[in-house]
Amino acid sequence: MNPETKEKLDYIKSVLKEANNYAIACNVLAFDQETICPPRGMQAQGEANAYLANQLFKLVKSDEFISASEYLYEHIDELDDLDKVLADQYHRDYVKNKNITPEKNLEFTLAFNQGFVDWTKARQNSDFSMFADALTKVRDVCIEKVKLRELSEEDKKRGIYNQLVGDYERGITTEELDKCFEHCKERLIPLLKKIQNSKKKIRTDFMHREVKEYQQVEMVKYLLDVLHFDQERGAFSTSEHPFTHWVSQHDTRITTHYYPTDFSASMYSIIHESGHALFEMLQPTEDYDHYIQDGKTLGMHESVSRMYENRIGRSRSFVKLIFPKAKEIFSDILSDVTEEEFYEAINAVNPSLIRTESDEFTYTFHIIIRYEIEKEIIEGGLDIADIPKRWREKYEEYLGVSPKTDREGVLQDVHWATGFGYFPTYSMGNMYNAMYYNRMKNEIDIDKCVENGDLDTINNWMKDNVFAKANRLAPSEWIKDITGRDFTADDFLDYLEEKYSKIYELS
Amino acid sequence: MNPETKEKLDYIKSVLKEANNYAIACNVLAFDQETICPPRGMQAQGEANAYLANQLFKLVKSDEFISASEYLYEHIDELDDLDKVLADQYHRDYVKNKNITPEKNLEFTLAFNQGFVDWTKARQNSDFSMFADALTKVRDVCIEKVKLRELSEEDKKRGIYNQLVGDYERGITTEELDKCFEHCKERLIPLLKKIQNSKKKIRTDFMHREVKEYQQVEMVKYLLDVLHFDQERGAFSTSEHPFTHWVSQHDTRITTHYYPTDFSASMYSIIHESGHALFEMLQPTEDYDHYIQDGKTLGMHESVSRMYENRIGRSRSFVKLIFPKAKEIFSDILSDVTEEEFYEAINAVNPSLIRTESDEFTYTFHIIIRYEIEKEIIEGGLDIADIPKRWREKYEEYLGVSPKTDREGVLQDVHWATGFGYFPTYSMGNMYNAMYYNRMKNEIDIDKCVENGDLDTINNWMKDNVFAKANRLAPSEWIKDITGRDFTADDFLDYLEEKYSKIYELS
Repeated sequence: MNPETKEKLDYIKSVLKEANNYAIACNVLAFDQETICPPRGMQAQGEANAYLANQLFKLVKSDEFISASEYLYEHIDELDDLDKVLADQYHRDYVKNKNITPEKNLEFTLAFNQGFVDWTKARQNSDFSMFADALTKVRDVCIEKVKLRELSEEDKKRGIYNQLVGDYERGITTEELDKCFEHCKERLIPLLKKIQNSKKKIRTDFMHREVKEYQQVEMVKYLLDVLHFDQERGAFSTSEHPFTHWVSQHDTRITTHYYPTDFSASMYSIIHESGHALFEMLQPTEDYDHYIQDGKTLGMHESVSRMYENRIGRSRSFVKLIFPKAKEIFSDILSDVTEEEFYEAINAVNPSLIRTESDEFTYTFHIIIRYEIEKEIIEGGLDIADIPKRWREKYEEYLGVSPKTDREGVLQDVHWATGFGYFPTYSMGNMYNAMYYNRMKNEIDIDKCVENGDLDTINNWMKDNVFAKANRLAPSEWIKDITGRDFTADDFLDYLEEKYSKIYELS
Repeated sequence: MNPETKEKLDYIKSVLKEANNYAIACNVLAFDQETICPPRGMQAQGEANAYLANQLFKLVKSDEFISASEYLYEHIDELDDLDKVLADQYHRDYVKNKNITPEKNLEFTLAFNQGFVDWTKARQNSDFSMFADALTKVRDVCIEKVKLRELSEEDKKRGIYNQLVGDYERGITTEELDKCFEHCKERLIPLLKKIQNSKKKIRTDFMHREVKEYQQVEMVKYLLDVLHFDQERGAFSTSEHPFTHWVSQHDTRITTHYYPTDFSASMYSIIHESGHALFEMLQPTEDYDHYIQDGKTLGMHESVSRMYENRIGRSRSFVKLIFPKAKEIFSDILSDVTEEEFYEAINAVNPSLIRTESDEFTYTFHIIIRYEIEKEIIEGGLDIADIPKRWREKYEEYLGVSPKTDREGVLQDVHWATGFGYFPTYSMGNMYNAMYYNRMKNEIDIDKCVENGDLDTINNWMKDNVFAKANRLAPSEWIKDITGRDFTADDFLDYLEEKYSKIYELS
C-alpha cells in the first residue's frame, strides 16, 4: 500500500471511530424512545436524536471524508479484502447520492417525516384520504431521488421501481421478482384452495385463552435460553411493536409485546427477533474492526429471523422441546392440550387481513399484494387515491377476504410512509432460508439438534455459513456462496407444500 | 438592557440550547447503562457517553462562552431575575474552576475514575487495602482542587473541608454542621438508649417473608398512582441501586430494586425516588426556559425525597391509606398482620451496619459517623490506612454494632471514591423537611389529606412553597424563605422524639 493510501485509510477509520459514538447514542436513544421514554419526553429526545444524527452526518458527508473515500476507491487494488468492502460501500453510496444537494436531502427527509405523521393520524382515524397527499409527495420524492442518479443504459431500461427495490436488496431486479412471485402464485393459489377444502379440523380455541404477563415473561426468558441468546451481549424489553436494535458490537437488544389473550404472539416474536439478534451477535469480529458490520441486507436479515421463527420455531421438533415448559408455565390454560394440538395450532392456515399476524403459509400473499400495488404506483401510474380499492380487490382475489376499514387494509403498515421497495425483502428472506436450510440438513441432523435443545450446533452452522460473508457480498453472490446455487423460490415452495400437505392431510 | 448584553445573553442561551441535546443524550445513556445495557455493551456505551460529555464540555468551556458569561455577570444589573440566577451560576462556576487547567482537570477525573474502579474491586473482595492508594489520591486531589481556588480570608480560615461541603450544599459551613451534629448526638444518643431499653415488642417476622417480583411491581405501580407520579412525564424501571434520573423537562425516570425477601424495600425506595421526581416534575417552567433548572442542591433534593419517604410514607395515615391494597397484593404473606403491626414494623428501630438499609431513627448516626471521619481525613490528618479502625470504633460507640468485614463497613458506600463532603447533605435533607413540614401542617390537614389519598393537595403545597424558588436561592435563603426561620435541627429532633416515644411507649 502506498503511504498516501495508508494515510487516507487511517483517516477514514478515525472518522468512523468518532462517528461510532454518535451512532451508539442515536441507537440507544431510539431504543429508549420505543421502550421506556414517557410520552411527553418524546419531543425533546427526538430533537436530541436528530441533532446527534446530524453531527454524525456532518462527519461522514464532509468534503474531506468524501474525497478520501473516493481516493480509496480509486486505489482499491491496494487494499485488503475487508477494506475493499468498505471502500466499495462508501463509493456506491457516494455515486447514488452525489447529485442530491443538502436542500434536496432536507426536502426528501421532510416528505418522509410528513408521511409518518400523516400515516399515524390517518391510521388513528382509519381514513386513507388523510394520508393521500403525503403519500403522493413520498411517491414523487422516490421517483425524483432515482432520476437524480447517473444510471447505466441497462438500469434505465429496468425502470425506477427496480432501483427502489435495489436500495433495500442490492442487485435484485424487478424482472427476477416478477418471475419469482408469479411462480409463487402458480403453486400457492391451488395449494391454498386444497387446504381450505381439507376436512382436517385444527383446534385453536386455547390459543386465545387469557394469561398473565408475568407468565409470558417467564416463557420468553426460557425461549431466550433455549436459543442461546447471550444476555451478556444483549437485552430484551417491551415495546408496542417487536423489533431488534443493534447498538454496538456487544450490545443487541430485542423487544416483544405481551397480549393477554394471544400468548403465542410474544413467544414467536421473541424467537423472530432472536434470529435477528443472533445474526448481529455472531458476525465476524473483523467486520467491526473494518466498519463494515452494516453491509448485510434486509432480505438476508429476514431470512435469518424467519428461519428461527418458522423453520426452527414452528417445527414439530421445536414444539417437542418446548411444550413441557409451556405446559408448566401456562398450566392454567394448556392442561387439556396435547403437544400435537399445539403444533397444529401454531401452524393453522387462516387467510386474514393483517400481515404481521398472518400464518406462515399465507404470509407470502400479503407480500405479493404489496409488491404488485407498489409497482403499479411507481411504474403503472396507479392513482394514489385508488390504492384502497386495488387493495380490497387483491385481498379478495388472493385470500378471499376484504378489509372493511382502511386501518385493517392499506393503513396497517407504516412502510410506504418512508418509501417504496421494502416489502419484497420479507419474502426473499423466506426463500433464502429455504435454500440454506436444505444445505444445512445435509450436514447436520437439524430435528435431532432441536429436539435435544442443542441450538448451539445450529447457531454455529449459521455463523460459519450464513453470517460469515453477509456483510461482504451482494445477496445473489452470498446465497450462491452458501448453497452453490442461484436464487430460487422453489425450495421455499417445496417446503410449504410438504409441511402443509402433511398437517392438512392432503392427498 | 443594552444591545450588547442582549446579544451576549442570546448567545449564551443558544449555546445552552445546543448543549441540551448532549445533556439529554448523556442522561439517557447513563439511565440505560444502569437499567438495561448488557454487561459487555458497557464499555462502548461508556466511551460514547464520555465523548458526548466532552462535546458538551467544549461548548460551555469555550473561551467565547466564558467571556460572554463573564460579560453578563459584569452587567448583571441589566438582567431580569432569572437571567441573574443564570449569570451568577456560571460566574460562581468560573471563579471556582478558573485555575484548573485542562491537564489538571484530566488528572482529577482520572483519579476519581480510578477511585471508582478500585472501590468496586475492593468491595468485591471486601478488602479496604485494595482501595487505599486510590483513596489517598482522591483525598490529595480534593485538597489540591480547593488550594487552586482564590478564597477570601474568611474562607481560608474555615478550611478545606468547609469548601468541599459547600461544593455540594452551597453556603453551608462546617461550623454550622459541627454544632448541628453535636446537638443531634446530645438528643439522639439518650433517646436511642431509651428505645433499646423499652419493653415494647415490635413484630417484624413478616417483613422478610418471600414474595414474587410481579407482586412487588403491582404494589409499586399502585404507589406511583397514589403519589400522583405522572407517567406521561416520567417512567420507572429496575436497577441494582434505586435512583432518580432527570432526562429533560418532561422526562424524569426513577428506579427500584426488587428483593424476594424484603418487599418493603421496593415500596419505600419507590416512594423516596418519587419524591425526587416530583421535585423535578413540578418545578417552575420558567426555570427551564432560563436554563437554571439544575440550581437546586443535593440537600434540598434529599429533603423532598425523605419527606415523601418518611414524613408521608412512614406515617400512620399513609399506612391506613395503603394497607388494604398491600394486604390484597401480598395476601399470601400479610393475612395474619394488622395495620398497626405493619406501621410499627416499618418504623422499628434497629441499629445496624448498612446506611441504606437503616431505619429512619438511626439513619442520622450513619451520617454523623461519615461526617466525623471525612472531616478528620481532610482536616485532622487521619491516615487513610486507619479509616477502617476508626469506622469500627465509631459504629461501636454510637450504635453498639461493629462491622466484621470492610464490605459491611467502610466499603459499603461509593461516595468517597468520587470525593468528600457529600454525606452531610443527606442529614440536612431531614432537617429541612422537618422545618417546612411544620409550616405545612399549619396550613393543611396533612394526615387527613394522606388518609383520603389526596396527595395532590400536598404536592401542590410543595410546588408552591418548596419547589418554587429552589433553583434560585442558596439553601439558607431558601429554607428561610419557606419557613421564615434560620436553619435548625430542632424540628427534626422534636419530630423523632415525639414519633418514637409514642411507638416505643416511652415515658
